[in-house]
Amino acid sequence: MYFKKIDSEGLSHFSYILGSLNDAVVIDPKRDIQEYLDICIKQGFSIKYIFETHRNEDYIIGSREFSRLLPNAEIFRGNDLPYEYGTTLRDGQRFTFGDCKIKAIHTPGHTLGHYSYVVYGENMEDQPQFVFTGDALFAGDTGRTDFYGEQRKSEISGLLYDSIHQKILPLGDEVILCPAHGSGSVCGSKIEERFPTTIGIEKKLNSQLKMSRNDFVKNKVEELHTFPPYFKKMEEFNLGKAPYLYERNFPKPLNPKEVQQWIDKSAQIVDTRNPSDYGGAHIKGSICIWLEGLPSFSGWMLNYEDPIILILEKNEDVTKATNYLSRIGFDNIVGFLNGGLLKWCVAALPIEHTELITVHELKTLIETGSEIMVLDVRSQEEWNEGHLSPAFNIYAGQVPVNLEKIPKDTSIVVHCSVGLRATVAASALENKGYKKIKIVLGSYNAWENAGYPIKFE
Amino acid sequence: MYFKKIDSEGLSHFSYILGSLNDAVVIDPKRDIQEYLDICIKQGFSIKYIFETHRNEDYIIGSREFSRLLPNAEIFRGNDLPYEYGTTLRDGQRFTFGDCKIKAIHTPGHTLGHYSYVVYGENMEDQPQFVFTGDALFAGDTGRTDFYGEQRKSEISGLLYDSIHQKILPLGDEVILCPAHGSGSVCGSKIEERFPTTIGIEKKLNSQLKMSRNDFVKNKVEELHTFPPYFKKMEEFNLGKAPYLYERNFPKPLNPKEVQQWIDKSAQIVDTRNPSDYGGAHIKGSICIWLEGLPSFSGWMLNYEDPIILILEKNEDVTKATNYLSRIGFDNIVGFLNGGLLKWCVAALPIEHTELITVHELKTLIETGSEIMVLDVRSQEEWNEGHLSPAFNIYAGQVPVNLEKIPKDTSIVVHCSVGLRATVAASALENKGYKKIKIVLGSYNAWENAGYPIKFE
Amino acid sequence: MYFKKIDSEGLSHFSYILGSLNDAVVIDPKRDIQEYLDICIKQGFSIKYIFETHRNEDYIIGSREFSRLLPNAEIFRGNDLPYEYGTTLRDGQRFTFGDCKIKAIHTPGHTLGHYSYVVYGENMEDQPQFVFTGDALFAGDTGRTDFYGEQRKSEISGLLYDSIHQKILPLGDEVILCPAHGSGSVCGSKIEERFPTTIGIEKKLNSQLKMSRNDFVKNKVEELHTFPPYFKKMEEFNLGKAPYLYERNFPKPLNPKEVQQWIDKSAQIVDTRNPSDYGGAHIKGSICIWLEGLPSFSGWMLNYEDPIILILEKNEDVTKATNYLSRIGFDNIVGFLNGGLLKWCVAALPIEHTELITVHELKTLIETGSEIMVLDVRSQEEWNEGHLSPAFNIYAGQVPVNLEKIPKDTSIVVHCSVGLRATVAASALENKGYKKIKIVLGSYNAWENAGYPIKFE
Amino acid sequence: MYFKKIDSEGLSHFSYILGSLNDAVVIDPKRDIQEYLDICIKQGFSIKYIFETHRNEDYIIGSREFSRLLPNAEIFRGNDLPYEYGTTLRDGQRFTFGDCKIKAIHTPGHTLGHYSYVVYGENMEDQPQFVFTGDALFAGDTGRTDFYGEQRKSEISGLLYDSIHQKILPLGDEVILCPAHGSGSVCGSKIEERFPTTIGIEKKLNSQLKMSRNDFVKNKVEELHTFPPYFKKMEEFNLGKAPYLYERNFPKPLNPKEVQQWIDKSAQIVDTRNPSDYGGAHIKGSICIWLEGLPSFSGWMLNYEDPIILILEKNEDVTKATNYLSRIGFDNIVGFLNGGLLKWCVAALPIEHTELITVHELKTLIETGSEIMVLDVRSQEEWNEGHLSPAFNIYAGQVPVNLEKIPKDTSIVVHCSVGLRATVAASALENKGYKKIKIVLGSYNAWENAGYPIKFE
Repeated sequence: MYFKKIDSEGLSHFSYILGSLNDAVVIDPKRDIQEYLDICIKQGFSIKYIFETHRNEDYIIGSREFSRLLPNAEIFRGNDLPYEYGTTLRDGQRFTFGDCKIKAIHTPGHTLGHYSYVVYGENMEDQPQFVFTGDALFAGDTGRTDFYGEQRKSEISGLLYDSIHQKILPLGDEVILCPAHGSGSVCGSKIEERFPTTIGIEKKLNSQLKMSRNDFVKNKVEELHTFPPYFKKMEEFNLGKAPYLYERNFPKPLNPKEVQQWIDKSAQIVDTRNPSDYGGAHIKGSICIWLEGLPSFSGWMLNYEDPIILILEKNEDVTKATNYLSRIGFDNIVGFLNGGLLKWCVAALPIEHTELITVHELKTLIETGSEIMVLDVRSQEEWNEGHLSPAFNIYAGQVPVNLEKIPKDTSIVVHCSVGLRATVAASALENKGYKKIKIVLGSYNAWENAGYPIKFE
Repeated sequence: MYFKKIDSEGLSHFSYILGSLNDAVVIDPKRDIQEYLDICIKQGFSIKYIFETHRNEDYIIGSREFSRLLPNAEIFRGNDLPYEYGTTLRDGQRFTFGDCKIKAIHTPGHTLGHYSYVVYGENMEDQPQFVFTGDALFAGDTGRTDFYGEQRKSEISGLLYDSIHQKILPLGDEVILCPAHGSGSVCGSKIEERFPTTIGIEKKLNSQLKMSRNDFVKNKVEELHTFPPYFKKMEEFNLGKAPYLYERNFPKPLNPKEVQQWIDKSAQIVDTRNPSDYGGAHIKGSICIWLEGLPSFSGWMLNYEDPIILILEKNEDVTKATNYLSRIGFDNIVGFLNGGLLKWCVAALPIEHTELITVHELKTLIETGSEIMVLDVRSQEEWNEGHLSPAFNIYAGQVPVNLEKIPKDTSIVVHCSVGLRATVAASALENKGYKKIKIVLGSYNAWENAGYPIKFE
Repeated sequence: MYFKKIDSEGLSHFSYILGSLNDAVVIDPKRDIQEYLDICIKQGFSIKYIFETHRNEDYIIGSREFSRLLPNAEIFRGNDLPYEYGTTLRDGQRFTFGDCKIKAIHTPGHTLGHYSYVVYGENMEDQPQFVFTGDALFAGDTGRTDFYGEQRKSEISGLLYDSIHQKILPLGDEVILCPAHGSGSVCGSKIEERFPTTIGIEKKLNSQLKMSRNDFVKNKVEELHTFPPYFKKMEEFNLGKAPYLYERNFPKPLNPKEVQQWIDKSAQIVDTRNPSDYGGAHIKGSICIWLEGLPSFSGWMLNYEDPIILILEKNEDVTKATNYLSRIGFDNIVGFLNGGLLKWCVAALPIEHTELITVHELKTLIETGSEIMVLDVRSQEEWNEGHLSPAFNIYAGQVPVNLEKIPKDTSIVVHCSVGLRATVAASALENKGYKKIKIVLGSYNAWENAGYPIKFE
Repeated sequence: MYFKKIDSEGLSHFSYILGSLNDAVVIDPKRDIQEYLDICIKQGFSIKYIFETHRNEDYIIGSREFSRLLPNAEIFRGNDLPYEYGTTLRDGQRFTFGDCKIKAIHTPGHTLGHYSYVVYGENMEDQPQFVFTGDALFAGDTGRTDFYGEQRKSEISGLLYDSIHQKILPLGDEVILCPAHGSGSVCGSKIEERFPTTIGIEKKLNSQLKMSRNDFVKNKVEELHTFPPYFKKMEEFNLGKAPYLYERNFPKPLNPKEVQQWIDKSAQIVDTRNPSDYGGAHIKGSICIWLEGLPSFSGWMLNYEDPIILILEKNEDVTKATNYLSRIGFDNIVGFLNGGLLKWCVAALPIEHTELITVHELKTLIETGSEIMVLDVRSQEEWNEGHLSPAFNIYAGQVPVNLEKIPKDTSIVVHCSVGLRATVAASALENKGYKKIKIVLGSYNAWENAGYPIKFE
């Protein structure tokens, strides 16, 4: 059997393509499907089935793109929602592709219609080789159970426990486990970078698998998760309404004057350069999200209405940037500043700076009692595992909706773990008119590496 | 000024992209426009103008693709036809892009609405750097004047003479000449492989430029040109009706059974392998056009209605093959035989052979008085410059419409210059039920290299 | 942990690169190491250790290339042979890279100095994630035990049994098993295409793991393996003497005359085209090995002394061809026939044909009692699982040393499974002066698919 | 004839490869010759001749690399120096490649042994198509004549005049002119971005071609040229001593601690990021040369003894950076800071900032009489065409050897044309202990675009 994991960088999303003889099967495809098609050409596969584990909320699934290009590839998914495409599965439904078999097993918990897929390789009879667990079971973690509201969390968590313990774990220690996400996904905060893994390994290392049902439910109910605003858009798109990729604009190289005109028409300026570059000089009002951070942070920081202009290190980055943005549905990219910020400066247009400080300077600021507010924009879980003091925690993604907690007249010293998310948050604040922002390069990790004092509560 | 010639392989078609500051200009773009877009991203160009020299008959122009992706790029062309897009030029109209200038000059002759474009580079004032002459003037040749019928040939040729002598040559010996075609194009049989060239070089080397108006007209009227059936389709498409490339199918890997089913539904089997491979074994009824020959010969051999199935050396060749076919509007490619002919054989499906002979064997056949017909499928011009004897000349592209001249019960020995076109013609004959076909490997060139006797009349 | 399997196509050899933090580890690298280096640049890894599972006999290991470019990367291997490089392991020796650990375990059997490597991922403490078993244990098979001669086979097989049962299997069902070879390797005839697999899966599916020690030893002693002549050369190279890749020639495009001159100087002509192309027309004396077959068959068919000339489908294939040949030490490639066989024909040089027949024609030949010898060049194991009758079995690789069994005056009808190896064998026979060769396209598999009678003894 | 110009980016160096039938010819190859070899494979060329126009001083010529891989390709050059390789030309010597011809004409002036090459395409008899003029004649400029010292300038300039007027221009207006450099090269300050151009165009537009011999000589004698320190090294290498590229190190990804250790061992830190990034944060002591500026500025700023460490935007930039550095012989690159400056900050290591200002701020500084020194690091010729006042001009490359003119206790405001060279100079000053540096983003061009006052003397 041909087996390949296909990563959506920045989203820590894993999709899979399996092949046997002339047939291929794709599980949870990403929106930009060319990579699967290239494999099909090279390996000689026709895609027979596309399986979705669940209605995804953190990216646009590629099923619609496939349905246009490969109308004969059948799409399967659960029946929990009013989908405009595909076929509803039933628990235990079996499929074959080439000389291999697949069994769809209903594993509710993360969503009510969640399915996992058990795959039996060539000559393996009833011995499973893989189980594709979507957002039910990860390496080191289990799926979120908070999508049906606070009041149903406990019920949903119980469903997940049962799905895992009654349907997935009994497949056998030797079965290879292929989840939909890796470390860094918003779909689970404790996911480990362990691929491939097996049911047996997870039984030994994933502490949530060792809990009683009661403890598991209690633990899940207490879990903290962010709910980015773009999830709503993804949910809507993934019922069938996502536009086709070919409908997007060609992102044009723009000269400074054109960029200025777009700014005047309320375009969103997205600066994909790194923190030191942003600190050194940037265009007023721009939101700075480093290139690899686009898939995870543009959904927190941007809206779906206003056109987007990119500020890039290099013109060639535009392909990656537009691709990353398209994964969560930001298709309205009119262009990029040709030649980058240098050209903007040559046009004698105004720039802004943001102060960049080291942890050593931060320590001095704290010790000398400067009037500052130390803003930690890591997640609450990261905060819980250690933080500076005094400091204040608002997750980077939630900074724009918590401005009332952040004073405009105080110096705000923003840090995250290494400085990237701090720059996202800092730019969001400056976009809202904050003037006295400092970004801590190296951030919390540098603080730790410097051996400076850490608090845990 | 940025200057790049972009070749459409197989068509010997040249398009050009010019850039200055942020602006670019494209002349006679090919249909697959990604290459221009990539240059724009890298160089930071916005395409300001697209210039067509004339309504092309030998490929689909990329203007329509551009108009979808870059609605602000203005398309200019002559006014001789009922175009559904673009803007009509007037003689002498001037344009600027970046720090460069362009003047459109009306140069009728090949077509009545034909325009050439004179380009003045940065800091060059009124000194032209380039002239883009489309199908008016080539290296070593001039444009065809036969598109308005036999009776207007002389009038049209006169127009061409005047365009060349009154508008192009006076630009100056030092001006660089950029035509729309190179050696091998159907748009001129004497075009030389000379790029770049200049007006001065052509004045010295292109014998047609040294003729009197009378001699030139007489010479052009006597010229022989083929008129492939696909020209009509191109003319229609290039008024504005060409479908978009994104509307094409994804060409699927097909197993032998699926290919057989398509054959039963009258699909056209296009075998892109080389002559020895075709001779060794092929599927009955297939038309063999070598990969690089697709743009020039599929228009002679295929129809636009029936779906196309490809037989390839390697699966990966499908990208090139579909691209080549799309350049002349063959978009209906359903797929390719996965794994190539070997898989067909493994499926125990029937194959056919075609006898492949050397020029030495051909010589023996002739000398021993075997009952054969030697069919030379080169162009009439090639024939005129030397041929075997006895032999019979029908241009490869015209073999399918001249079957009445080719007996079915005689052994037909087909040759061209090296063997590629001979294989196209041979497969076309076999497709029509001819059984006694031999292909001469090495063909006329090998005959010549062997020092065998040649006739000239 | 970063984990990537790197395949050596054509050899079914798997190497692995693992990374954690800034460190990487490579296991059994192939000779063309650029792929590992590119990963290091992108991922930011320094290669800390290179581990060899054993002295390989079927390809040149990349350790020597690494030692030149990365003198600080330490190379480890067993102590059974007089290596000129690297460091000797001791059983149970432990290493760390980044936050991961490795334990080297002595697993003699395939070779006396064979080591396997147990890898513990980040945060996994003493729970193994992977075991890299080299040629000890494969998916569906176990390593060959015939390298120390007939008389030691039983002893060596016993060692292998103990290594597997006492050292590898006890690691746990959940551990992922990463062998050095996949299906198609000469290092095991029953290896399955199953990746990844686990110890638990193999315990259930690999029948050799269910045997008693006695049965296992008996079974291994009876196994049949080929011993290609190039193994000797590999063994010699892999003690440390392999030349550097940069020392190779640049393979020049040659015109037919130059190729002819090299033939006169006893160059080896290697035709990498497919069977139908070879059958259609080829140069006398050439050995036809399809491109992907070069790594496995050139070692049987070519010698290391005479220079090599390639006949290719496309000029660009030369990169792949030289790379494939270099993997088993054929570095003396002087060039390739520019433009392929077509140019040879144009030069009016002589060609040869080989008759290509279908299984249907073969059946008729057999049924009508034609005077033929049906030569089956598959492996003896394939023969044992079913064959035509009457037929005669000599493995393709061994045809050149068994000519006395193959009459020159009889028509020899050669088949393998699909036709590729048959063409290798056919060309080897023709190279030795055989004139009456027929190749069966589709071969045994087509025969089976046609429903024709099969014998099993 | 096949014709391709191959650019060495950053050096504005043009080399050329010409092909006809199976033969190719290369003129002034760059050191990294793979691009030529790839063309040879694809086009089926054997390189027959390598022609050098002169002993180059601004890059390492690729002849030595060719001589190793293609020992049969003959290298030709003038006889003015004690070369350790190649063959001496004589004036008027003729060569053929395929169906084309070349005539070498001795055109002393830039160097005494300088040759130009006249190329006659297929079927062109004695009509030249191209002349390759090396450093004798450029678009808009003529070669430097200062390499033999002040006292011989006038004699050498006269030689150049004669070479141009007696040997090159008489070839004819229609001949295409292919020089060795384009705009931006250190080999001519007025070179225009005009390619292709012709002798006729240059006669009309290149003002130096319209001068009398006396005026020309006078003008050349007065020309100002920089003589970068690396020229000496290039001259030495280009007599035959250049090391082979394969001998270079593999540039390792280094962690911050390793970089710190290299710094302690006096490694040169080369920061290839852009000005705003450098200004935002950088490692103390680093020399900042933007990626595309490496070929032209590393020769001014770096020494050939100390090892080099790179600070990059992205790890993948290392390939380009090492390639660029190798073109002028900086082969001793031990590695790059893995993960870039962010990782340095995370390691809590110290960083430095440099103040970045706009032209508006600079204007205010000047107007308010701040105690600053405005340092213009453009070339003297750029200065002469307009500059700020008060300001002081030292060419960026010469800043390190003119420190005595730059006070350490004054605020130094550095500008160039757009900000890139200003950053090179600023980093060089900071490397020497200057603390009060400001870089003007947008620099002189922004000043001009803002409409601020300009002086011309």
